[in-house]
Amino acid sequence: MTFHLHLETRRTRPEHLKLTEALWDAAAKRHPELAQQLRVTIGWDDEILDEALKTADFMINQFPPKERLAERAPRLKWIQTTGAGIDALVPLSWLPPHTTLTNNRGAHGAKAEDSCTLAILALHMRFAETLQNQRDRLWKMILTPPVAGKTAVVVGFGDLGQGAGRAAHKLGLRVIAVTRGGKAEAPAEKAYAVTQIDEALPLADFLILTAPATAETCGLIDRRRLALLKRDAAVVNIGRAALMDYAALREKLERGELAGAVLDVFDEEPLPPSSPWWTTRNVIVTPHISCDSPRYMDALLDRWFENFGRLRSGKPLHNAIDPARGY
Amino acid sequence: MTFHLHLETRRTRPEHLKLTEALWDAAAKRHPELAQQLRVTIGWDDEILDEALKTADFMINQFPPKERLAERAPRLKWIQTTGAGIDALVPLSWLPPHTTLTNNRGAHGAKAEDSCTLAILALHMRFAETLQNQRDRLWKMILTPPVAGKTAVVVGFGDLGQGAGRAAHKLGLRVIAVTRGGKAEAPAEKAYAVTQIDEALPLADFLILTAPATAETCGLIDRRRLALLKRDAAVVNIGRAALMDYAALREKLERGELAGAVLDVFDEEPLPPSSPWWTTRNVIVTPHISCDSPRYMDALLDRWFENFGRLRSGKPLHNAIDPARGY
Repeated sequence: MTFHLHLETRRTRPEHLKLTEALWDAAAKRHPELAQQLRVTIGWDDEILDEALKTADFMINQFPPKERLAERAPRLKWIQTTGAGIDALVPLSWLPPHTTLTNNRGAHGAKAEDSCTLAILALHMRFAETLQNQRDRLWKMILTPPVAGKTAVVVGFGDLGQGAGRAAHKLGLRVIAVTRGGKAEAPAEKAYAVTQIDEALPLADFLILTAPATAETCGLIDRRRLALLKRDAAVVNIGRAALMDYAALREKLERGELAGAVLDVFDEEPLPPSSPWWTTRNVIVTPHISCDSPRYMDALLDRWFENFGRLRSGKPLHNAIDPARGY
Repeated sequence: MTFHLHLETRRTRPEHLKLTEALWDAAAKRHPELAQQLRVTIGWDDEILDEALKTADFMINQFPPKERLAERAPRLKWIQTTGAGIDALVPLSWLPPHTTLTNNRGAHGAKAEDSCTLAILALHMRFAETLQNQRDRLWKMILTPPVAGKTAVVVGFGDLGQGAGRAAHKLGLRVIAVTRGGKAEAPAEKAYAVTQIDEALPLADFLILTAPATAETCGLIDRRRLALLKRDAAVVNIGRAALMDYAALREKLERGELAGAVLDVFDEEPLPPSSPWWTTRNVIVTPHISCDSPRYMDALLDRWFENFGRLRSGKPLHNAIDPARGY
């Protein structure tokens, strides 16, 4: 039995996130038995999308078409997105009832852990200043004590949040998680429900945002809640820009009311050259790389094949989105 | 019984390494019983040194006088240096036989651990390039896989080396130590004797130098040994510049034959504005801060008091230098 798998990418996507023929061929070689059950089409910018949908059983596509999908894709059983966040896809009322949507959560934890380790230390040790001094040929000792003993408040404790938690824990920090249900596993020492976040924020030396953008999290850290942070607290955002009032954040940073920030996500990406964030005081801008590896799509396809094997064995798919909850 | 303790500092020392009256008063308050057994003099630039030596029982001094010391300081029982390295003091033939020399090793491990964690990640993730791109308002994704699985070769496995080893280990790296005797404790998985270092160098993704400068270690990583490193290896030096042929290192870096370096120590410090190191390709210059905390001298005095208590109880002093071995 042969299934039709359609891969679809926009040409404007970053290189490491494109579903190319070379990428597919390499993955198929790693999974030869499963691959021979597939007929594969590869499309760009939706040029062959309509034709492909007519017969596609499966699709890998970060931006699946939402209009009349059940009608256009009568056989479509499964859509795999290439990212972890599906905020651009919710609400999921467009998803046909016979189609399962899976995302790529779980692929980002190890890299998020490294990125948060670096972010915490760079902020604590004022590393950007030392690099600026190097450019100025200035030998100026910026001395800071070891970071152990500080407290990290991690908002969201899924794949990314647990990576952030491991980062903080291994640096000797106390880890407090903020989650929907107010529970979190180790290395979180304590967890607050998101409704109780006001109690957690004043404890943070490092506030690390890792949550997806949902109806519940958008605007979560508003101006009032930013004011609950200590004056020497620092912010790390590897989740979504929409979680926080960035205008209020920038005002606080420029006034020196926070120690600094590492921001990996922005409302507009790529961040335009005119953005004030490039030069905001004590801010380190990273271009949405904190959770991605150059082998990200190879890993995605390996996980897709694993899931395809589960489907062929009648097992439920990993990383299936619940349309009602939106995650 | 009252002892005379003399504190001596050069005015040119960095602020955080000066033995001031305020620093002493604070320490004395933390150790009131021991402090009342002491008469303390505080000198600068050797202005009152000769007078003080006549009666001093103990001295804290990074640069103790070497000439005719037994004659000038007949009662001197104990000299405490303020640093860990005593390379400027060896050979110790100047040290009177009735005088014990102690250094401040053990005070630097926790900070060295943070610094090496940051250095490994900054080199691996090419963080300096991302910060340069920020200055250029350039959104350019530099993607690197998680660092776990790489190998760190740590030269010297004392206080600093063990800190470096802990840093590498917690990032998921394999840790190989190079020590005098070819043995090292966890987190080192394997150790080579310094005479076998040629076997260890080709294994390094990160070569981390932490050894003191001794007759045995000066020039250890010469041009020939640098050539044993992999082309994508990176170098971290938090020990002493004299351990490595820096001219050869700079040539290799400029030719792109190494991934990069974080250098915290230099032949001449402060590094003069004319130094080529400020702008050497893929080099991060840190101004000899990797192992120091702003509370360094407070901790030194606390450790001195602990040792003074041991002396009063007839116990051997911690961190005593063996004049024959020079460490």
